[in-house]
Amino acid sequence: MPVSLDPSVADRLKRTADGLVCAVVQDRTSGKVLMVAWMDDEALHRTLTTRRATYYSRSRQQLWVKGETSGHTQYVHEVRLDCDGDALLLRVDQVGGACHTGDETCFDATTLLAAQDHAGGQPMSPVR
Amino acid sequence: MPVSLDPSVADRLKRTADGLVCAVVQDRTSGKVLMVAWMDDEALHRTLTTRRATYYSRSRQQLWVKGETSGHTQYVHEVRLDCDGDALLLRVDQVGGACHTGDETCFDATTLLAAQDHAGGQPMSPVR
Repeated sequence: MPVSLDPSVADRLKRTADGLVCAVVQDRTSGKVLMVAWMDDEALHRTLTTRRATYYSRSRQQLWVKGETSGHTQYVHEVRLDCDGDALLLRVDQVGGACHTGDETCFDATTLLAAQDHAGGQPMSPVR
Repeated sequence: MPVSLDPSVADRLKRTADGLVCAVVQDRTSGKVLMVAWMDDEALHRTLTTRRATYYSRSRQQLWVKGETSGHTQYVHEVRLDCDGDALLLRVDQVGGACHTGDETCFDATTLLAAQDHAGGQPMSPVR
């Protein structure tokens, strides 16, 4: 399958050895960081052209459209590239929980270091 | 140098081939995603025990304390691990700009896909 990502974008990406860039996904309304996933050029192309968040699964070695089976889709409002070209920031409208566990975010489950106060923080959850 | 990361934490990490996990850094007050960096076990150990954000530089192949030379330090309030153990979320107090360019965030410079409206979005900036 030919890759169709705009060359002016493709030229700016700094990929891992396996050809991927990291994508940070943020809820547009709550501002919460929902998940981190990976994109190859084709996943980024499809995300930019369809506004449906599309990633590359390292374990399955194939593209996947977020929510295609769960219904928990992400409508992509904005995509930004970081200063050194190796990370993307997607601001999305998330339908349902972003995490495959059903949690709102993939970061809900495990706290390694707890906030010393709750000011401005997300609600605390126990380490599990 | 022996790695001193708590084994109960180390056992949960799913590292890249080069032994790293991705760290997403979010401003605790504004909710903005500031940057993405990488951590090896020792960087995570130091971050958890000192609350000074410490990363691993892939280009220089060494640890670096954020702000050690620029003064733009990050005080770490909270560290979370995602559901599959390959990404960290740090909620920090950022001193100065997070980006080495002087920008507030590393995602300020380049917009690949613009929001269709401005509701809830970060201020728009031109593609450059």
